[in-house]
Amino acid sequence: MSAPEQERLARAALSRLTEPGEPRLSGLLAELGPVVLRDRLLEGRGSDGLQDDVATRLAACDPVAELERAERFGLRFVVPGDEEWPAQLDDLAGVEPLHRRGGVPVGLWVRGPLRLDALHHPVAVVGSRSATTYGTAVAAEISAIAGREGYAVVSGAAYGIDHAAHRGAVSADGPSVAVLACGADRAYPVAHRAMLEFLAAEGAVVSEAPPGCAPTRIRFLARNRLIAALAEGTVVVEAAVRSGALNTATWTSRLNRHLMGVPGPVTSASSQGVHELVRGGAATLVTSGADVLEVLGAAGEHLAETPRGRERSRDRLTRRQQQVLDAVPLFQGAAVDSVARAAGVALLEVQTALVALERTGYVERGEDGWRLAARAHD
Amino acid sequence: MSAPEQERLARAALSRLTEPGEPRLSGLLAELGPVVLRDRLLEGRGSDGLQDDVATRLAACDPVAELERAERFGLRFVVPGDEEWPAQLDDLAGVEPLHRRGGVPVGLWVRGPLRLDALHHPVAVVGSRSATTYGTAVAAEISAIAGREGYAVVSGAAYGIDHAAHRGAVSADGPSVAVLACGADRAYPVAHRAMLEFLAAEGAVVSEAPPGCAPTRIRFLARNRLIAALAEGTVVVEAAVRSGALNTATWTSRLNRHLMGVPGPVTSASSQGVHELVRGGAATLVTSGADVLEVLGAAGEHLAETPRGRERSRDRLTRRQQQVLDAVPLFQGAAVDSVARAAGVALLEVQTALVALERTGYVERGEDGWRLAARAHD
Repeated sequence: MSAPEQERLARAALSRLTEPGEPRLSGLLAELGPVVLRDRLLEGRGSDGLQDDVATRLAACDPVAELERAERFGLRFVVPGDEEWPAQLDDLAGVEPLHRRGGVPVGLWVRGPLRLDALHHPVAVVGSRSATTYGTAVAAEISAIAGREGYAVVSGAAYGIDHAAHRGAVSADGPSVAVLACGADRAYPVAHRAMLEFLAAEGAVVSEAPPGCAPTRIRFLARNRLIAALAEGTVVVEAAVRSGALNTATWTSRLNRHLMGVPGPVTSASSQGVHELVRGGAATLVTSGADVLEVLGAAGEHLAETPRGRERSRDRLTRRQQQVLDAVPLFQGAAVDSVARAAGVALLEVQTALVALERTGYVERGEDGWRLAARAHD
Repeated sequence: MSAPEQERLARAALSRLTEPGEPRLSGLLAELGPVVLRDRLLEGRGSDGLQDDVATRLAACDPVAELERAERFGLRFVVPGDEEWPAQLDDLAGVEPLHRRGGVPVGLWVRGPLRLDALHHPVAVVGSRSATTYGTAVAAEISAIAGREGYAVVSGAAYGIDHAAHRGAVSADGPSVAVLACGADRAYPVAHRAMLEFLAAEGAVVSEAPPGCAPTRIRFLARNRLIAALAEGTVVVEAAVRSGALNTATWTSRLNRHLMGVPGPVTSASSQGVHELVRGGAATLVTSGADVLEVLGAAGEHLAETPRGRERSRDRLTRRQQQVLDAVPLFQGAAVDSVARAAGVALLEVQTALVALERTGYVERGEDGWRLAARAHD
């Protein structure tokens, strides 16, 4: 199944001539369809002032050549109506704009073999560019565990947490999707060129902006909504109070997707934004990949094991022995009847238990009576 | 106001001859009153088997001498009916026993000038004995901030978090209460003798166990319920999965008091128990003394300031200038009309804005057009 060619061409033209996340576009597209909308704009007919910005340029635009050139560079333009269209993005239609960005994208420019309609439990792992080594280690670990389960790790290819997220997924041979603010043919940041090439070869590199576009701040804001909307849930690993990752978090909440936060030291500014999300109830606290799988997985599919701690040797004692052991003073000795009173256990039973506990090294007999021995402190 | 002397004597006898938190005692006391209960037990009359444990010793017990001796050592025995009785402990009557400990205490043995009926917003700060330097620093800081507000910091005088909690409160000249598992005349751990003497001189040292008693494991369990019940809320700073602090946390929840948890690195075993509490929804995440005051304070009395982060210089730009600045590429230059298109702003306005932004150091003109300058990255 694929969208009609006329629609694809109209969308390619609109993609080139409007900004990603242009909030007026999504509603008009839904109402008129891409062909009629493009034609109206070409005719300079009123649509919220959008025509003033684009009309002249729309006429000069050549979407046929644009799509051919994209194909030569290994890019495809995925649009609503295509089998590959990730339907979860349509949820964006129901969400109010944020920072003047919003709506369902006109289309997505994609590089890489991963099909966007077949992402298995996509999970966004995002956070600060200026991450700590703690944050990057946790992001990589969570992404590796998600990747090992075949979950698609979605992130923004930025420095810090994003990079660690892709790296973690790749290390586990898991699928990973980079959503960029610049054209999908470009490498930003330049230092991540090799990683982006790898993702383009084995995963997917996606952008709402057409090839060649430079990243701008509003394109980052528009991009963040796509990260949130592609994924079933977003894990924020580290985010200072004004981190862009909090923008992705807000989109996640507005989309009613799972928002998760990894805590860190309260003394770390990099965790402050995450703590705010958890404290305010917006995000669920997660501490591991297992926690994330539990939040996202089908019920019962992944249940994070509640950590039980090291089994204490006292767990192997009988209930009566434990009761008696609990009543032996931590220091100073105690007579049998004093232990019996403290334990609420009959004298004879206490004697039996104390002898057994002495044999196994839990208590010892001193001049002043029974006291705990080394093993009781295990 | 003070309890009838006969009742105080009966309670002193019962305190000496039953274990702290003896779960059968509380209901019987409420039903029969201390005098009748003691007399019944003296007569060996059936009360859940309690009489077998205590009858003979009750006869031999001399509460008059006990109270006189206590007074000589600077201890008072506070019982229900006394003006000083902390009424919040009565809530324990409605809570099921935990680890075979429960109920309202028979009475409290108290050293120190702080009156238990006049604790201002008592808050428990508890956690692992084997705390990290991170944990003790945070516990001391939170307690200092609570102490500075005159809140009474309640803890257990143990190593680690407890010690840091008392230390933090004292450092801010705030009231602090140590609740012990041994007699209030004793120092456990011995290394904290000086701190306990200080609290006895300026705050309060409290125990349900009569003077001279050694600490046993069940006395710790009984003690934890008093820490939870004395306080309006409990802050767990660090707790491994099997930490005793989680016992205090459970009491706090069962008493419907505020349970708060301080997060830490997910890689730290010492924070694992706290993270479980937050993740499961039992505890509210708190990151500072201000957060704790907000949870405990009267509505509006303390509102933790949502951290806003360093104000960015861009906040001082006009809305139009921000809009234009957002549309300037992060790297590579862009022509004015390209910026105008990205910003969705008329060409003339963009030119005006760019010139203003150039003057203030946000953008610069290169050979390839406008690009961001250093200040834009502030």
